[in-house]
Amino acid sequence: MDEQRDTTDRFLPRFDAAGLVTAIVVDADTQALLMVAHMNADAIEATRATGQAHFWSRSRSALWRKGETSGNGLTLVEMRVDCDQDALLLRVKPAGPACHTGRRSCFYRRVEADGGLTFLADDAQG
Amino acid sequence: MDEQRDTTDRFLPRFDAAGLVTAIVVDADTQALLMVAHMNADAIEATRATGQAHFWSRSRSALWRKGETSGNGLTLVEMRVDCDQDALLLRVKPAGPACHTGRRSCFYRRVEADGGLTFLADDAQG
Repeated sequence: MDEQRDTTDRFLPRFDAAGLVTAIVVDADTQALLMVAHMNADAIEATRATGQAHFWSRSRSALWRKGETSGNGLTLVEMRVDCDQDALLLRVKPAGPACHTGRRSCFYRRVEADGGLTFLADDAQG
Repeated sequence: MDEQRDTTDRFLPRFDAAGLVTAIVVDADTQALLMVAHMNADAIEATRATGQAHFWSRSRSALWRKGETSGNGLTLVEMRVDCDQDALLLRVKPAGPACHTGRRSCFYRRVEADGGLTFLADDAQG
């Protein structure tokens, strides 16, 4: 562990080989985990500058503002960084469903012991 | 988006080039985000078989049971998968601090507008 990163009071994001950190998006009001995405330096900057969550799409190799096509933007309430600074927590106010499937959260299925998936109610706790 | 993965009722984890998925660990009782780690197929299997969270350490290239040295294990309450099945939510009961720094959560600093980090109280909401 890079000793300085977990004790410093300076934001020193540790980008991976692709220039990305993991972004964990949580509903600031309900604390529900909404989605996981990735951010590069530009996405972090755009998010902080506009107050609207921006991510880096690995499949499209493009910067995108969440909601730019769906209208379901994420207004940033607070950004936190983890101990080794390779992951960010974005506490947000969602304008609508966070998942491309139209669900509140992307984590809408429980993994059962037999390897099956159970679809959960859209307001399932968690 | 691989159409089948977000509609199927079968657990089809989409591992990356390193054979890993992202694991988001949340306290099942408080819903606090505790940590982010990575799991390969062995770690998923060991977690489901034992009920104790196991991860893959990228730095040590080793399978590890959270708490094997610290005693701060994570008992699995529920595992969920996201829409494209490359990230898992582990809702857990922590036996102690989840972070190597001795804090409840690894997300103990807020990123301020000026790029500074503010250290949060250990029981800060979120």
